[in-house]
Amino acid sequence: MHSRTLDGTGCEVGGFGWTESDVSERTSTLSKAERTRDNLEPAVPHVDQANAAQQKLDALFKAKGQRPNIVWFLIDDMGYGDPGAFGGGEAIGAATPNMDRLAREGLKLTSTYSQPTCTPTRSAILTGRLPVRTGLTRPILAGDRVGKNPWSDEVSLAALLSDSGYTTVLSGKWHVGEAEGMRPHDVGFDEFYGFYPAQKELSQAFDKRRYPDLVLNPERLAALRAEGGSEALIHGWKGGKTEEASRITCLDDVADGDRKLKEFSIGKIKELAASGKPFFLEHAFMKVHADNFPSKAFEGASKSKFPYKDCVVEVDTYIGEIVSALEQAGVLENTFIFITSDNGPQRDSWPDAGYSPFRGAKSSAWEGGVRVPGIAYWKGMISPGRESDGLFDLMDLFNTCLALAGAGDKVPQDRYIDGICQTSFLLCDGGESCREKVFIWAEKDLMAMRMYEYKIHIKVMTTHAQWLDIDMTTVASVGIAPWLFNLYIDPKEEYPVGHRMNAFIAPMSAELKAHAATFKKFPPKDIGL
Amino acid sequence: MHSRTLDGTGCEVGGFGWTESDVSERTSTLSKAERTRDNLEPAVPHVDQANAAQQKLDALFKAKGQRPNIVWFLIDDMGYGDPGAFGGGEAIGAATPNMDRLAREGLKLTSTYSQPTCTPTRSAILTGRLPVRTGLTRPILAGDRVGKNPWSDEVSLAALLSDSGYTTVLSGKWHVGEAEGMRPHDVGFDEFYGFYPAQKELSQAFDKRRYPDLVLNPERLAALRAEGGSEALIHGWKGGKTEEASRITCLDDVADGDRKLKEFSIGKIKELAASGKPFFLEHAFMKVHADNFPSKAFEGASKSKFPYKDCVVEVDTYIGEIVSALEQAGVLENTFIFITSDNGPQRDSWPDAGYSPFRGAKSSAWEGGVRVPGIAYWKGMISPGRESDGLFDLMDLFNTCLALAGAGDKVPQDRYIDGICQTSFLLCDGGESCREKVFIWAEKDLMAMRMYEYKIHIKVMTTHAQWLDIDMTTVASVGIAPWLFNLYIDPKEEYPVGHRMNAFIAPMSAELKAHAATFKKFPPKDIGL
Repeated sequence: MHSRTLDGTGCEVGGFGWTESDVSERTSTLSKAERTRDNLEPAVPHVDQANAAQQKLDALFKAKGQRPNIVWFLIDDMGYGDPGAFGGGEAIGAATPNMDRLAREGLKLTSTYSQPTCTPTRSAILTGRLPVRTGLTRPILAGDRVGKNPWSDEVSLAALLSDSGYTTVLSGKWHVGEAEGMRPHDVGFDEFYGFYPAQKELSQAFDKRRYPDLVLNPERLAALRAEGGSEALIHGWKGGKTEEASRITCLDDVADGDRKLKEFSIGKIKELAASGKPFFLEHAFMKVHADNFPSKAFEGASKSKFPYKDCVVEVDTYIGEIVSALEQAGVLENTFIFITSDNGPQRDSWPDAGYSPFRGAKSSAWEGGVRVPGIAYWKGMISPGRESDGLFDLMDLFNTCLALAGAGDKVPQDRYIDGICQTSFLLCDGGESCREKVFIWAEKDLMAMRMYEYKIHIKVMTTHAQWLDIDMTTVASVGIAPWLFNLYIDPKEEYPVGHRMNAFIAPMSAELKAHAATFKKFPPKDIGL
Repeated sequence: MHSRTLDGTGCEVGGFGWTESDVSERTSTLSKAERTRDNLEPAVPHVDQANAAQQKLDALFKAKGQRPNIVWFLIDDMGYGDPGAFGGGEAIGAATPNMDRLAREGLKLTSTYSQPTCTPTRSAILTGRLPVRTGLTRPILAGDRVGKNPWSDEVSLAALLSDSGYTTVLSGKWHVGEAEGMRPHDVGFDEFYGFYPAQKELSQAFDKRRYPDLVLNPERLAALRAEGGSEALIHGWKGGKTEEASRITCLDDVADGDRKLKEFSIGKIKELAASGKPFFLEHAFMKVHADNFPSKAFEGASKSKFPYKDCVVEVDTYIGEIVSALEQAGVLENTFIFITSDNGPQRDSWPDAGYSPFRGAKSSAWEGGVRVPGIAYWKGMISPGRESDGLFDLMDLFNTCLALAGAGDKVPQDRYIDGICQTSFLLCDGGESCREKVFIWAEKDLMAMRMYEYKIHIKVMTTHAQWLDIDMTTVASVGIAPWLFNLYIDPKEEYPVGHRMNAFIAPMSAELKAHAATFKKFPPKDIGL
């Protein structure tokens, strides 16, 4: 019994001691998914549902004469439990009426999965590929020298949508590389208005109470700045033109970042709506990544009064304003909106931290690390009041958005694509997910898999902190028996039942092996992170 | 530093080592509540809100010519997290569309508190008094010989509403005594159709796989039956007439109980609506108390397929049917509906158990033990879409329902009343709670207090089980410093901050002392439980 690596890449695929002969394309008795091409993730075929969705899309296209717009709201580090619609909101001192309304009037997805951290999620949703395939397996940090530009041979959704007649804009956080060739406007976005690094990488240069050893040590601060996240709001255009829209010179500037991004998105929506071309806008909030500083108008705006909570209110308010802008521009009924978070809440900023009802936190493979709120809203196209625990991996946005753009044929066939087209799940009343499994990786380790309501852990992360779930980035133990949980009866993953529920171990192990097999033909990439 | 008892009753009021001089009526700097009479719990005066609510009630009375009906749905042992509106539902494999709709179209109360167990809650909501005052401090169990009838000097809401022209009916579980003089129809209900004990006390006589040492041991079974919960559906009428409607002879009969109760309530609503008198119907489900057996039509009805979950679906369906019956009878707009659970989920029946996102479970003073879903629905009188974390103690139903019946003057003045009238909170748009504190008792111990978003523990229950929160009825340790939690930032009570947040310790301690002082004039009662 030992863990092993595939193809010498350092990517471990489990603690099962599989032999090469195990690594095959076999599926399991538990599976209903079909693999249609060897580079595509198997999907559950829902033929009638798919036809119905296509008819809906065709009718809309006929009525509007244009492909639908796509708007994503990606909130940074917000916990599953933070929005009211997901159990928080008013109950935890930060009401979220806008997200709640969109969830109520759209499809609330209670089993949406991200990667455990930021860079991995942000790159995965734009490529439809697991971080282990693109090399972007962990957050790029100030001081990181990325050995190889992962984007040199990746294809982004923004690029593919551009090729399909879309105007593509990223407003907000990037955090997938700031060297030339790795910037948003280098990898497919027509326009970028935002910040390269995470909010903390801006605030840490100014917050002398929290980071005195950095802010008050000129030598260290200079070193950080030489290598680190640009302390500036950047405006960039496809082709390479790049300007500093403004500089961050103090914490008030950090606090004001999201307000500026929101103003930009609202202005841009007016312009894009009038352009006669469909658009893809990724609005990626800087908030609510620790440390949080609400903008002036939102100080104390939450009932709780804590900065994190005030920032939740700020983000929620801006979502409301941006959706209003879509409505006022007359494009709401031709715009697919998706709201989510890039990973579970960071807990080591507690007490100023997000909330998840689940075990674990950001960077762990527990539900607390990877289960995020998911709201799909599309006036007239997604019926109000829908709710589903059907599995949705944020990578599915890649395939789904290409399908919505009528560009499903642009899904690359020369590489493995982990995303699945979920158009029919999202658009059809009573639609079911086309995904039956989510593979949960942490950096270069395959940690766990969710399949239907079951979750199997093949490596287990534990924390030794007595009270808090803090960041857990170390694989502390490799279990002899996999940890199996039933999330319907044990949403907090408190009680593994691998022995009792062993009917599921063999089929789920088979699924893991089939997943591992995809790396034989499509080896993982190492960019030196 | 030691705990102490008041008046030799065995009722400990804390671990603070208070002296007699501390026990006074003092309130704290944190408090906005006023005590209007020495036997009434202090309440936050919201004068404008109270006037607005009264006007609404007067207008309705004028329009309908009759006081409003009152319908309570009391679900047994359902977890805070079970309904979809409170974070569960579809996400945990048991959709609850009816409760979700009523929450959405009414007022969702996210900080509703019960007692930690069944008998205490059921008696407290009917008397407006803490169990320590009535003597009903723990569940009455099969074999219990209650030394003194606690009802001999208690006044029930049912009796007071009867005196005010209401027809009063209990359909379902009683569990507050089955000796003559303690039955529902002895203590104020005009009619009782239901069961005396909890569901488990019925099923344990028949479930030979779970209770073989009882079912397969004739001597023990006979002993249980001699002392125990009547295995019958009882029909009783004020005055004493009592019949067995049917006998429980097998598990299928147990499973079918709630269906029969639902049928009774629906028929009774038709009759009551036509009677020209206002009515009070307490519909107290037998489900979802462990062990759960769904009725035939609901086997496998939940996506999860577990019995508990199927029973959640069954209960939710019946709530929908009963509310429909009110609508069909034309009385929905003149009926105040409240839906709740009598305590947190029982966890030692896991995996067939309820779900709470909070720490602890039934019988503990942790949030998992006492925080329950609360839904106030009243078509035309409570605006749809409201949500509040304002404190609501289920005992508040006593005062509130008397006020709705125009019988606020019937609140007894010769004894301490822990309930607070919350009519204005419930009826006014943007209404705020009149309650700022909830005192959490477990049996005869004052354990904790919630005040606004803070919770202070003065005795701490811990469990030594590694994974599961099972029933925790033992006070395992008395802390030197109280455990203080901020439930906005720490809803799972993982990280006490008594030292860091000591600004709140003094005022909250003062509140606890003022509470203790109420026992000087109004001594607690001991009925030998």
